[in-house]
Amino acid sequence: MNQIEVCLSTNLFDCYDHKGKIVVVVDVLRATSVVCTMMHNGVKEIIPVKGIEEAREYKEKGYLVVAERNGQKLDFADFGNSPFYFTKDVVGGKTIVYSTTNGTNAITIGKNAEQVIIGSFLNFQAAVDYLSEQKKDILILCSGWKGKFCLEDSLLAGAIAKCLIDSGEFSTKCDSVNASIDLWSLAKVDMKSYLGKVAQRHRLKKLGLDNVIGYCFTMDVTNVVPILKGDRIVPHIVYES
Amino acid sequence: MNQIEVCLSTNLFDCYDHKGKIVVVVDVLRATSVVCTMMHNGVKEIIPVKGIEEAREYKEKGYLVVAERNGQKLDFADFGNSPFYFTKDVVGGKTIVYSTTNGTNAITIGKNAEQVIIGSFLNFQAAVDYLSEQKKDILILCSGWKGKFCLEDSLLAGAIAKCLIDSGEFSTKCDSVNASIDLWSLAKVDMKSYLGKVAQRHRLKKLGLDNVIGYCFTMDVTNVVPILKGDRIVPHIVYES
Repeated sequence: MNQIEVCLSTNLFDCYDHKGKIVVVVDVLRATSVVCTMMHNGVKEIIPVKGIEEAREYKEKGYLVVAERNGQKLDFADFGNSPFYFTKDVVGGKTIVYSTTNGTNAITIGKNAEQVIIGSFLNFQAAVDYLSEQKKDILILCSGWKGKFCLEDSLLAGAIAKCLIDSGEFSTKCDSVNASIDLWSLAKVDMKSYLGKVAQRHRLKKLGLDNVIGYCFTMDVTNVVPILKGDRIVPHIVYES
Repeated sequence: MNQIEVCLSTNLFDCYDHKGKIVVVVDVLRATSVVCTMMHNGVKEIIPVKGIEEAREYKEKGYLVVAERNGQKLDFADFGNSPFYFTKDVVGGKTIVYSTTNGTNAITIGKNAEQVIIGSFLNFQAAVDYLSEQKKDILILCSGWKGKFCLEDSLLAGAIAKCLIDSGEFSTKCDSVNASIDLWSLAKVDMKSYLGKVAQRHRLKKLGLDNVIGYCFTMDVTNVVPILKGDRIVPHIVYES
């Protein structure tokens, strides 16, 4: 039976063998929710870049650049990191360069795995269905916040893992999976109240950026699973909505 | 109000500012349970050492050495890592050199904090009372397993944090604290059944070493709080039992 593991922070990634596995990157607030929104609205491809200088060079070459650090848009960038910017008019058919505090690092460190896909609550069922079809071992990589554990990423990891294990096709021996499933079981009963505990919610609120939170926890807004191909993220449509 | 944080793995320790804080090292299965047992049974002091070679050198100098890797006793050592070896007869008044897979690393990496103390279920109330008196910020450091998150350490971290926060003298903005408290709230209802999820339990079972598990989850066996002073762990007695 295929195995599921959860890695609770990018700083723990080296503890896991990721060879032959599908890495599912999650950064609920906000990078992977933004990527899923762009894909839903018809972006052609996204180039995730880790460094600020690399993002700036792309800008100088004429690319549309989304770049954020510590929640806030960088001066030279075209956009900050709110999913609400990326309507069909703005991103349809475009190539977007994307650099954030945590999420884009998580996407790039997984690149030697069998495959890297992008998960969020927005494409939850599509991601689960896709993973179920692949019949590979899975490592869900929580982006966290500057190396620290983030509750919201663990909740999504738990939700995905629970669905896959309940299907009978996957099992786990990983403490981080069991913890994430338990946290999800507590949170899902009253998500709105549970989110009061999430530190990233308070960070975004301080910056006036917390208007995205309800949206980022909405399930199944899109049927697209973003997949890393080489150095670019491209859309894969799982089912017709 | 003083703050509590939890660091879920030694590999995440560098993400936390530990200056001026009390670091509480926990490695429930088994290092910090063993240290508390030795202290309860009258050991004079414990010298935690990270490396195997350093432990071997101490042995050659005539010290009593406890050394384990991957659960099993190292050839040259006097004892493996079961708390049941360390009766009053064996350790009373002695200096013991101690090296394990995860726990002794956690003890040594915290050494630049304001203070390092050793926590386990065995000295739970004593540790909570001690921390409550110090009125310092607290960082609970879970040893984990080779860098990975371990459920049992998080459960103890959650139990300690919940007690301190409920006292009204501590608060938290740390996702790892909130997650640990939630996991503890689920586990404590039926600890025996919850422990079925713990990967370290299965590792120990495979080695025939799981007879210690019930003991390591017993609360308040001792009133000693082991404290790191320089390069040695010494006993501090919190209250008369």
